[in-house]
Amino acid sequence: MYYAKITLDIEFGGNDMSEKALAYLQEHRERLVSKLSDFLSIPSVSTDSAYKEDIHNAADFLVTYLKDIQFENVEKQDTAGHPIVYAEYNGAGLEAPTVLFYGHYDVQPVDPIDQWDSDPFKPEIRDGRLYARGSSDDKGQVFMHLAVFEAYMKTEGKLPLNIKVCIEGEEEIGSENLYERLQSKKEQFQADFAVISDSGMVAKNQPTILYGLKGFTGIEITVTGPDHDLHSGMYGGAVRNPIMALNHILASMKNIDEVITVDGFYDDVEPLTKEERKRMADVPSEDYVTSTGIPETVSEKGYTAQEHTMARPTFEINGMYGGYQGEGTKTIIPSSATAKITCRLVPGQDPEKIQALLEKHVQKVAPKGVTVKVKKEKLSAKAYKVEPNHPLITKAAESYTKAFGKETVFIRMGGSIPVVEWIEAIYDIPIVLLGFGTPDDRLHSPNESFPLDSFDKGMETLVYYWEKVREN
Amino acid sequence: MYYAKITLDIEFGGNDMSEKALAYLQEHRERLVSKLSDFLSIPSVSTDSAYKEDIHNAADFLVTYLKDIQFENVEKQDTAGHPIVYAEYNGAGLEAPTVLFYGHYDVQPVDPIDQWDSDPFKPEIRDGRLYARGSSDDKGQVFMHLAVFEAYMKTEGKLPLNIKVCIEGEEEIGSENLYERLQSKKEQFQADFAVISDSGMVAKNQPTILYGLKGFTGIEITVTGPDHDLHSGMYGGAVRNPIMALNHILASMKNIDEVITVDGFYDDVEPLTKEERKRMADVPSEDYVTSTGIPETVSEKGYTAQEHTMARPTFEINGMYGGYQGEGTKTIIPSSATAKITCRLVPGQDPEKIQALLEKHVQKVAPKGVTVKVKKEKLSAKAYKVEPNHPLITKAAESYTKAFGKETVFIRMGGSIPVVEWIEAIYDIPIVLLGFGTPDDRLHSPNESFPLDSFDKGMETLVYYWEKVREN
Repeated sequence: MYYAKITLDIEFGGNDMSEKALAYLQEHRERLVSKLSDFLSIPSVSTDSAYKEDIHNAADFLVTYLKDIQFENVEKQDTAGHPIVYAEYNGAGLEAPTVLFYGHYDVQPVDPIDQWDSDPFKPEIRDGRLYARGSSDDKGQVFMHLAVFEAYMKTEGKLPLNIKVCIEGEEEIGSENLYERLQSKKEQFQADFAVISDSGMVAKNQPTILYGLKGFTGIEITVTGPDHDLHSGMYGGAVRNPIMALNHILASMKNIDEVITVDGFYDDVEPLTKEERKRMADVPSEDYVTSTGIPETVSEKGYTAQEHTMARPTFEINGMYGGYQGEGTKTIIPSSATAKITCRLVPGQDPEKIQALLEKHVQKVAPKGVTVKVKKEKLSAKAYKVEPNHPLITKAAESYTKAFGKETVFIRMGGSIPVVEWIEAIYDIPIVLLGFGTPDDRLHSPNESFPLDSFDKGMETLVYYWEKVREN
Repeated sequence: MYYAKITLDIEFGGNDMSEKALAYLQEHRERLVSKLSDFLSIPSVSTDSAYKEDIHNAADFLVTYLKDIQFENVEKQDTAGHPIVYAEYNGAGLEAPTVLFYGHYDVQPVDPIDQWDSDPFKPEIRDGRLYARGSSDDKGQVFMHLAVFEAYMKTEGKLPLNIKVCIEGEEEIGSENLYERLQSKKEQFQADFAVISDSGMVAKNQPTILYGLKGFTGIEITVTGPDHDLHSGMYGGAVRNPIMALNHILASMKNIDEVITVDGFYDDVEPLTKEERKRMADVPSEDYVTSTGIPETVSEKGYTAQEHTMARPTFEINGMYGGYQGEGTKTIIPSSATAKITCRLVPGQDPEKIQALLEKHVQKVAPKGVTVKVKKEKLSAKAYKVEPNHPLITKAAESYTKAFGKETVFIRMGGSIPVVEWIEAIYDIPIVLLGFGTPDDRLHSPNESFPLDSFDKGMETLVYYWEKVREN
């Protein structure tokens, strides 16, 4: 690969310990980028069993790295699927806090391969970006943490706080075995707080604290009428059309003002404070019309699109089907129709309670002449939110601002990160989401990349952050 | 094949001419069934080009038959598709009426073949039914007419009226070339009225006059939102869901009382008279719950299922799709959603006007944030209705009743037969639908069959009918 000669512009402003670490990162920058490239060269695609050996190679890379920087109890833990890399640093002493650092070394598949401008597993720097599958999601961000740990260990021989490292290989396929492990080895993974770098900033070089994620739940509705498709001429007028019945049911669940009209749906929603609305208004907004091609933005009556996407629950029909889908016309009354629905939930809402409310509504409005069945999706999660004024968050924001030279914005996100929900549910500890990705990183798509700006300033942020947390 | 020994129980009650014809049919019954079986043994499947030779063989069978019974101008007319068999009988003289007899010699495919209890092209009699593809639809019914013509020609050497025979080979694939031919050779096919036997009775041995058919028209609605599927977490709350938008549009077009709520939709509908409602109430009703498996019958508020299926317009969603249809969950906002709709129309309604009303309604209720497109289906047809008191209908009913020994019922049907609409549109003549099929014939399905009762009593009906028409 080609390494751009980029000088690391680090403002020294920490204590002696952090200054040394930052100097180390600057001095070793070329080697660190090269080492990250070695990591990115391993095609650790978790969804395809053809890459099983590469999955192990990626895990081994991490094990070797962590051993090299003198972490303790380094293990490649077997699971029913891909291994979890575990390690500890306990040198900061009993009075220092312990952080659980979570990341993942598995990556998404690369298809369609012909849309890549360079080999996804031969990292290449172009225009200040490192192009490779996993550069942003999540190997690049994982590596930044390791490099910062290294910088401290190789300069001071110690870190400002105790660390538990947990890097899994199944994030892209549901983290099922991690969930089992977090529950069954609760003692081992226990910490005072958690840090995850598997998300992004709202814009390049715009420090961003993600302090809330939505939860989710889902149902599938199937409306069945006749036991086979019927001739619409012979039976139209005697038989309820299942698709139309499903239309009536669904149209009764969210109105044209994007307000969910299911009894009790909003009952437990934490109202947005003035302060939060102000904070959201300060976040640079995505131009949805340009990025998605829609004619205009539409959001819940009384709320901006920013507010709705970040902090108000949603009800989406993800898919619907019934009857004839081919060319032209087939004059049938179809036997059945199905809709798949997921809701994104906000703090206060309980996924199981919401599922029950949805089912109750559907059965209440189900018209006669058809049979209506509701299947509750098994996967669901509560929303996550940490107080933006929590000292661990405030310190993260200060560290970001110091490294990037720009005020940090605070966002909540409409997406869900299951591991966040699980860590909160199992350990009940604050979780700090320090993301360094950018909207242009093309996660899960061809030409994934990560800005070297994020790499450099992100490591700087982490150095500041560990110092600040230690000062607690 | 095996021929059941069934005695033909014909009540002689016509004039000398018809008595001779009836006696002939009784005497030659075994040979006629055998000849019909020869016709049924030809696999004249119109939709599959592999059967092209068989299509010609079936047409040739008819040509030979018609020549044998001294019909004139017998032609196998080439078309852009399968041939039309044409023939004339002009021996009844100028003062006698001329009937256009329409039928089709092509048949539906036989799949799934493993569900047939006997070879679809090796006719077999079991329990008084003739099993073979096409036995009811329409070769069996076509053959009854030919046999009656033969009976008259071989006994009296003449028929009571003049005849134009038109038997096409593309009914099961849309009759496109017939339509072209009826228009371009208007003189050739011109007649005083038309007779078609390609339908059924409401129950076995229940004489049934079909005096009205619905028309139809259709539209396809496509709602487009984002130009690609979006992550429901990142965009839910800023982007209108196209499936939900389509649900709102469709739910606004027909209400839960099965009333179509499109402005102007019912404006031109001929109201049902008391007499017609009485007539419909007299028709033995299908038990829809048993035959279709629905929980209960549902029809337009204020109308019975009989009335709605026979004589009130319908609005059916034939198919709808959008987004994810696989197993489990995919948390997307889909890019688009589509619904295919057809309406069955009643006398008075104009298909193009209805399409325009539907489109106007859709555009009126289309919510902001999405693009809504309406595609008008090209194929459409007006409803057809003949006065049940028309002498040609009254005589048909009398002939039926005489042959079957049971009062004739009068029905209208929710289906559409394009050729009926075309003959009416092009020639503006009465069309008499003399169907002898039964609800158990399994048209288009495995084990198609035709009751020999219908064969025998149907021919008897035709003999009476030609006599009665001649008496005019």
